Amino acid sequence: MKMTQIIQKKREGGALSPEEIRFFVEGLQNGETPDYQAAALLMAIYFRGMNQAETLELTSAMLQSGDSIDLSDLSGVKVDKHSTGGVGDKTTLVLAPLVAATGVPIAKMSGRGLGHTGGTIDKLEVFPGLTLELPTSQFIQQVQDIGIAVVAQTQSLVPADKQLYALRDVTATVGSIPLIASSIMSKKLASGCEAIVLDVKAGKGSFMPDEASAFNLANVLVEIGEGMGRRTVAVVTAMDEPLGHAVGNAIEVAEAIKTLKGEGPADLVELCLELGTQMLLLGNRANEEAEAKSLLMDAIHSGKALAKFKEMITRQGGDASSVDDPSLFPTAKYTHHLKSHDEGYLSSLNAKAVGVAAMALGAGRETKGSPIDLAAGIYLYKKRGDKVAKGDVLATLHAASPQQISEGILQLAEAFAFSAQPPAPAKLILGKKMIK
Amino acid sequence: MKMTQIIQKKREGGALSPEEIRFFVEGLQNGETPDYQAAALLMAIYFRGMNQAETLELTSAMLQSGDSIDLSDLSGVKVDKHSTGGVGDKTTLVLAPLVAATGVPIAKMSGRGLGHTGGTIDKLEVFPGLTLELPTSQFIQQVQDIGIAVVAQTQSLVPADKQLYALRDVTATVGSIPLIASSIMSKKLASGCEAIVLDVKAGKGSFMPDEASAFNLANVLVEIGEGMGRRTVAVVTAMDEPLGHAVGNAIEVAEAIKTLKGEGPADLVELCLELGTQMLLLGNRANEEAEAKSLLMDAIHSGKALAKFKEMITRQGGDASSVDDPSLFPTAKYTHHLKSHDEGYLSSLNAKAVGVAAMALGAGRETKGSPIDLAAGIYLYKKRGDKVAKGDVLATLHAASPQQISEGILQLAEAFAFSAQPPAPAKLILGKKMIK
Repeated sequence: MKMTQIIQKKREGGALSPEEIRFFVEGLQNGETPDYQAAALLMAIYFRGMNQAETLELTSAMLQSGDSIDLSDLSGVKVDKHSTGGVGDKTTLVLAPLVAATGVPIAKMSGRGLGHTGGTIDKLEVFPGLTLELPTSQFIQQVQDIGIAVVAQTQSLVPADKQLYALRDVTATVGSIPLIASSIMSKKLASGCEAIVLDVKAGKGSFMPDEASAFNLANVLVEIGEGMGRRTVAVVTAMDEPLGHAVGNAIEVAEAIKTLKGEGPADLVELCLELGTQMLLLGNRANEEAEAKSLLMDAIHSGKALAKFKEMITRQGGDASSVDDPSLFPTAKYTHHLKSHDEGYLSSLNAKAVGVAAMALGAGRETKGSPIDLAAGIYLYKKRGDKVAKGDVLATLHAASPQQISEGILQLAEAFAFSAQPPAPAKLILGKKMIK
Repeated sequence: MKMTQIIQKKREGGALSPEEIRFFVEGLQNGETPDYQAAALLMAIYFRGMNQAETLELTSAMLQSGDSIDLSDLSGVKVDKHSTGGVGDKTTLVLAPLVAATGVPIAKMSGRGLGHTGGTIDKLEVFPGLTLELPTSQFIQQVQDIGIAVVAQTQSLVPADKQLYALRDVTATVGSIPLIASSIMSKKLASGCEAIVLDVKAGKGSFMPDEASAFNLANVLVEIGEGMGRRTVAVVTAMDEPLGHAVGNAIEVAEAIKTLKGEGPADLVELCLELGTQMLLLGNRANEEAEAKSLLMDAIHSGKALAKFKEMITRQGGDASSVDDPSLFPTAKYTHHLKSHDEGYLSSLNAKAVGVAAMALGAGRETKGSPIDLAAGIYLYKKRGDKVAKGDVLATLHAASPQQISEGILQLAEAFAFSAQPPAPAKLILGKKMIK
């Protein structure tokens, strides 16, 4: 088998055989497939795509490139959740303890933020002492004991994805649906879950700017999950404006805690209930949506969800005092209130622009491994549809230096658009994909 | 400037700026552009193409990657000729002395064969002692003295093309028109000519299987040549069946010599007169086609063309005795007469299949640098349109071993197709591209 022939076949629009896909993935791992041939194949895949069988095989080959976590010692259906990434997306921080509080075991591996989107693991670092890297046995033991653990992905999980992602990143081939889908699903499958709820973001602040691509990705993700024997539901949700009011790390955690206390912003609450409902259904904790939703509401109003969150922080060695006293969270040296020069209705609040502004403030990282400022971020007082008068504070910016504040203002100013009439209401939940 | 952005721009169908193209070519040369990014860009170019300005800039950047030959000491218009490669294409062997004999200086650098197509330099090796690598000063001196020199391309000419071609070869991106055109033209321009006649092959035995692609390539080649200030004519010619009767090395040289003696096969003669006419017109040796053709016919019938060929062989240190006595050419140990099992008219003689059969016999090389057998090859007795009776000898195969003979028979058998009625006559000269 020759890589040149495999590249040529894909270039001409052919479907690669399982053997060809494995030859490529294994060759990349053992160094027999040179980077330049892998790069040419990735670009050919970018243009020609992959069919369902090819994408499934690619996922499976990547999955088998490394270790998998064995969660079979845990009782109950292990349900995982994944978001394709957005701005202000603190959903996991709410959803994990919320679902765990209803009795569905949560053994979750999360990632760090990159570019204008944040990551759960970065956010959890606001708790002093919290361990985010647990040995597998300890990870499983914790879920057995308290029903929840959220940790960072281990390095040995899906090494082929790390290699491929690094190559896609420098060859402008990140945005290919089969490549995105196999990357996401190989990592989910390797982390040992039995069922998966996917939050596929669509819109300005996501990696799928248009709805059609997001539904397409959702479809492919569900096909892979079900093809690999996991019940899978993908919920396509809007990411045109940030989720909730807080964008950053400490301020997002504070908003997640408020949500667990029953005081969350409407969009975040709606999303958590929707994704939580799907998780409870897949986890056999509820038989229908209304029942699931009521279990979730109960967990919030009884204080069980918040208690589960604190229990997890403490069990992982973290100091949870800030959960009850948010003033203990790190605060930024400089803040700035951005006031409106316009009046009318906020017709659009561009999530990408807000994310880029937050990155400029120090809340995000442009390249892997660069440090982030946990205290930096943006609090949005006005959201799409809100009435705005001249002089109203639109947002507060938090950063460690005046330079970052001015850079942030420059970026953030582009995020707001106004209209004389209120904009048509926007849907948050755009649709669901599942195999009945 | 970042390669990732350049790749992305081309991936999205944008036109690269001169700076971006130079950044790519220079980066590849100085090692700053990694092979994997170059490979991804090549594949994006394969899918998206390049406009006229981009192709011109790429050619120019490649040209400037190495040395150029300065032919300004030579008087007269230096006209070069290039063929995109075919089977049985011994045109340069005839055309170079033929045109030189009319007084147009021929300072020609040629290549070796690869795959199913042959190369002039390999064929010239049949003359014992002949030097094919001359220092530039000696190359120019020879043209000054006798009006002709045919040598191998020096290594220092267009190093960026060598790098790019090697990468295209292993990434399935050879067949892209802007990449093919810039590769051809950068080498032609570096070899110092002032005007260029291109023989762009179309059909089964060429790299452009369909006529439309060949005309497209011809157009791009002419645009580059004229854009670089060289008068350029591209003649699109059929390469569905081999040119002439001989396919190999020694037997092709023998056929070229016959042609210089006025006893050549009709198609080869027609092609040489057509290309020669264009060369004489560009070389200001004739003002119109009829005049050019008559000068060329004279050079053959007077024996001047043949004498010029012998003069060149001798001047380059070769033994030209075989020109008068073809029995001195190397002969193969094994020969086989392939007889027809069919009867009727030969409706098609697939050049690609003949080329592959000749390669199996040892006459060609599959990979660069591998040795070839000068005596191996195929002599075709029947060509398209000929009447064939059962038992007629279709071709004679020549090789060094019985294994190669059987392998050659297997391949060659696929080349012939028969019909009850004579096939419609096929055109050899399909069209011309030039800027008036």
